[in-house]
Amino acid sequence: MFTTPAKILDTFPNPHPHRDYVIAFDAPEFTCLCPLTGQPDFAHFVIDYTPDDLCVELKSLKLYLWSYRDEGAFHEDVTNRILDDIVTAINPRWVKIVGDWNVRGGIRTIVTVEHDKS
Amino acid sequence: MFTTPAKILDTFPNPHPHRDYVIAFDAPEFTCLCPLTGQPDFAHFVIDYTPDDLCVELKSLKLYLWSYRDEGAFHEDVTNRILDDIVTAINPRWVKIVGDWNVRGGIRTIVTVEHDKS
Amino acid sequence: MFTTPAKILDTFPNPHPHRDYVIAFDAPEFTCLCPLTGQPDFAHFVIDYTPDDLCVELKSLKLYLWSYRDEGAFHEDVTNRILDDIVTAINPRWVKIVGDWNVRGGIRTIVTVEHDKS
Amino acid sequence: MFTTPAKILDTFPNPHPHRDYVIAFDAPEFTCLCPLTGQPDFAHFVIDYTPDDLCVELKSLKLYLWSYRDEGAFHEDVTNRILDDIVTAINPRWVKIVGDWNVRGGIRTIVTVEHDKS
Amino acid sequence: MFTTPAKILDTFPNPHPHRDYVIAFDAPEFTCLCPLTGQPDFAHFVIDYTPDDLCVELKSLKLYLWSYRDEGAFHEDVTNRILDDIVTAINPRWVKIVGDWNVRGGIRTIVTVEHDKS
Amino acid sequence: MFTTPAKILDTFPNPHPHRDYVIAFDAPEFTCLCPLTGQPDFAHFVIDYTPDDLCVELKSLKLYLWSYRDEGAFHEDVTNRILDDIVTAINPRWVKIVGDWNVRGGIRTIVTVEHDKS
Amino acid sequence: MFTTPAKILDTFPNPHPHRDYVIAFDAPEFTCLCPLTGQPDFAHFVIDYTPDDLCVELKSLKLYLWSYRDEGAFHEDVTNRILDDIVTAINPRWVKIVGDWNVRGGIRTIVTVEHDKS
Amino acid sequence: MFTTPAKILDTFPNPHPHRDYVIAFDAPEFTCLCPLTGQPDFAHFVIDYTPDDLCVELKSLKLYLWSYRDEGAFHEDVTNRILDDIVTAINPRWVKIVGDWNVRGGIRTIVTVEHDKS
Amino acid sequence: MFTTPAKILDTFPNPHPHRDYVIAFDAPEFTCLCPLTGQPDFAHFVIDYTPDDLCVELKSLKLYLWSYRDEGAFHEDVTNRILDDIVTAINPRWVKIVGDWNVRGGIRTIVTVEHDKS
Amino acid sequence: MFTTPAKILDTFPNPHPHRDYVIAFDAPEFTCLCPLTGQPDFAHFVIDYTPDDLCVELKSLKLYLWSYRDEGAFHEDVTNRILDDIVTAINPRWVKIVGDWNVRGGIRTIVTVEHDKS
Repeated sequence: MFTTPAKILDTFPNPHPHRDYVIAFDAPEFTCLCPLTGQPDFAHFVIDYTPDDLCVELKSLKLYLWSYRDEGAFHEDVTNRILDDIVTAINPRWVKIVGDWNVRGGIRTIVTVEHDKS
Repeated sequence: MFTTPAKILDTFPNPHPHRDYVIAFDAPEFTCLCPLTGQPDFAHFVIDYTPDDLCVELKSLKLYLWSYRDEGAFHEDVTNRILDDIVTAINPRWVKIVGDWNVRGGIRTIVTVEHDKS
Repeated sequence: MFTTPAKILDTFPNPHPHRDYVIAFDAPEFTCLCPLTGQPDFAHFVIDYTPDDLCVELKSLKLYLWSYRDEGAFHEDVTNRILDDIVTAINPRWVKIVGDWNVRGGIRTIVTVEHDKS
Repeated sequence: MFTTPAKILDTFPNPHPHRDYVIAFDAPEFTCLCPLTGQPDFAHFVIDYTPDDLCVELKSLKLYLWSYRDEGAFHEDVTNRILDDIVTAINPRWVKIVGDWNVRGGIRTIVTVEHDKS
Repeated sequence: MFTTPAKILDTFPNPHPHRDYVIAFDAPEFTCLCPLTGQPDFAHFVIDYTPDDLCVELKSLKLYLWSYRDEGAFHEDVTNRILDDIVTAINPRWVKIVGDWNVRGGIRTIVTVEHDKS
Repeated sequence: MFTTPAKILDTFPNPHPHRDYVIAFDAPEFTCLCPLTGQPDFAHFVIDYTPDDLCVELKSLKLYLWSYRDEGAFHEDVTNRILDDIVTAINPRWVKIVGDWNVRGGIRTIVTVEHDKS
Repeated sequence: MFTTPAKILDTFPNPHPHRDYVIAFDAPEFTCLCPLTGQPDFAHFVIDYTPDDLCVELKSLKLYLWSYRDEGAFHEDVTNRILDDIVTAINPRWVKIVGDWNVRGGIRTIVTVEHDKS
Repeated sequence: MFTTPAKILDTFPNPHPHRDYVIAFDAPEFTCLCPLTGQPDFAHFVIDYTPDDLCVELKSLKLYLWSYRDEGAFHEDVTNRILDDIVTAINPRWVKIVGDWNVRGGIRTIVTVEHDKS
Repeated sequence: MFTTPAKILDTFPNPHPHRDYVIAFDAPEFTCLCPLTGQPDFAHFVIDYTPDDLCVELKSLKLYLWSYRDEGAFHEDVTNRILDDIVTAINPRWVKIVGDWNVRGGIRTIVTVEHDKS
Repeated sequence: MFTTPAKILDTFPNPHPHRDYVIAFDAPEFTCLCPLTGQPDFAHFVIDYTPDDLCVELKSLKLYLWSYRDEGAFHEDVTNRILDDIVTAINPRWVKIVGDWNVRGGIRTIVTVEHDKS
């Protein structure tokens, strides 16, 4: 009935490109599937970045994170892939992503990935 | 590749049926779809019950909650349906379900449903 | 450019009217004006109710709370008026409203209003 | 090298038996084994009781809880068994036990058991 | 009936200009309108600055933040504009502004902007 | 230069006298003097009441609490006197006052006083 | 050099004996010795009471609690003895004492004792 | 009846002057008057310093902070003046003062002032 | 009946070896035995590392931490040994381990160990 | 009956001397006497150190902290003396001590002392 969206990140021009500043998105509603067992995984993502020419459009980010819902994805890999997709979409001056994954086997996993253009 | 499980709640005999006591499940990993927009909804469920002859088996509860992942479900309705399914499966002496739904439109919704056999 | 919405509360039929249960809305984004000074006031509203035949539709509740944005409203009065409007719209079995108003003159004010049909 | 202790609860005379009062033990260091998989389970126990003629000696309670370390034990069952052992040892006027078990399969389980002599 | 104030920041002479020190304003009562939908947005602003010759007068800051109440304003843009207005008004040695915007589409946005005169 | 205000509580008519509801004032800024040593004491007052015909006006409450600033007042006594003054001013259906006094001699003192008209 | 004080509780007349109200003392600085090992024990005491003719004077309470510093005292017993001493000193309408004892052997002990004159 | 103390800071010799270390005072009980309106202001002060030859005596600090009780004082100015008075009294190697002022006009103000001898 | 697992850490290839990033494991379920008394000890471990060619497989980490269950182990020593085993298994670019041990003798012990390949 | 222990700190060889790492002791149960009034003082000590050849034995640390129970000790002085005693006993590469003293005269005092061998 409903279609999971594609992996598209819309952008808009940075309204203040002369200045280095930080935009943070706090996104607690991420879910994908464990590639080994097919069982749901849940994570809380926090994305901080300094835009260059482009910013990430908020609604498209929501759809982009939703796009992982039916995919198998390892914790370490998917956090890096989200970073790569943001770099491809907006080529920011700096970006850091924290993926905080719910407890599995009594252990919680937090993956922190960073990219610096300079 | 992976199949969302069916709505099945396995049971086991209450090991201490002579005594009224309370079993609580704290399940923060629930997601379904909004029936109007098809967008994902997220909720934290807490289930308290006093078993009669039967208890809910923990692993089947995990699969049961997972079974809503691809369904459209209204907040008020799905919380009542989970209650009905637990009553059907184990006919407990008492059961209360709290579904705490993430913010939509700036408003968080919490639905509390209770059933008492007596 | 933009129009503040009217005071309308949409409803939908209670999907489980045979059962007493509680729906809670946690709405931290309320603002109106002080009738004496015209300065903005801010409040966090929590609405708990047990539906009878009708439920409050979430999106219309958001618009309804927004409708106070340009009105002068005393703390004690507006909390009672919101209760009256919900009673008029859905005639619930029970409803309680807590309006938690931000500090003015070093004092925070919390107004709690309740209505029981029985 | 080291021996896991036996299930013994030492007692001492209630120093104030003419009065109903409550002694609470907050014991976060409980571990046993899952009877199905043999994997460790962890729980936080809170024991509240009103003594009659006898009180539970604190050091023996520590050893008693330790005694479950190498045993397979279901959440619902072991919480009831600890209650039974305390009733056998000191026959209290009232006792309540809460066993709060760590997350398994994304779900935390809390079992609450109570016994009232009267 | 009531008039939304204009964008004016009053100042007073820095009483201790020989010393670098930091004044922080913690202002949780900010609201404007979404430029696309006209719906209210809410934010919590924190402003830290080191004054040079002038300080920001507290009451005028309250009125200044209030002035956005009826305007459409994008998260990233308005945070930068508030920074620009403070720089214009008092030309501080250093200033940092954090705008923490309420959840929209399940995502909270925090914009951090900084200006250093040196 | 400045004058400490007199002990006056202004009132306004209860806008919804047909209904029992609760108005709470959370007032953390209370200070008086210790009658024995003359040293300042500090307290956090919370006042809950159900109005009958009259409500307490917020600004006059601020001035009323301020009026104790230069007075010697024992913890137990002043909490009761504030209750008496509110009963005299508005004759409420019910009122409860909690005075939470800062640590003196390593001990914090909380005085809770209640009056019920019925 | 310094002398540990004797077990004396000074009193003063209840300034509002016509009214039932509650005075609470929150006293985190209690220490005595374990009667078996001589090692220090530490507890946080909370004393709630409704005075009849007399109140407990705060400074003498501080000295009274200090008086246990060099004594051996069992958790259950000393909490009851403090209750008895308060009843002897002021014969209150009601009094409740909670003694919250620091972790020993991985277990924290909380003793709650109550006395009601009626 | 009681006299507000003068602005005097007593000192004692630093017992360990060969070592750089930090003494912090956490003083939540500060009140003065608004110079414009005469209304009470309340602040929480934290003072950190590294002593050189002298330390601040605790009881005199209490009296010193009390000395502002009847004075009109602007937030930014009084925080700097307290710093100046401590520098005059003990000429410390380093000192930092944070004055955290209660909400006025919906905005909390925190002033941070630092002095380094080197 | 059940066998405690051996000390084996499985690995998998780092999916993004061109980038320095951090993987954190938050593992609150660690228990071993005190080498002197044989009594159980409990700790909460947090492991942060930057992988080089290899990552630690999550399930094997669970089994590895479980492997200490029947061993005597000093706080300082075992934290270092876990670090050594991780370095041997995956030779990471950087790794830090925090072992937070439950209160013994009224004192909690936290051991922090770090290894940097460069 | 019981004897307060002497000021002795036992040691054991650092099991991993080739590596810089940090051992932290969190000790909330410290009490001594005020040298001026003889009244009890209470503090929470946190000790962080990097061992060189020797480590502090945990049980002797408990006894060592207990040894101050009957001594008069100024806040600033005793924190420095504990540092000196640890340096004498184990000559660590680095050590930091925080003594957090309970409120006296409305003010809490925190003393932080550090020693670096290099």
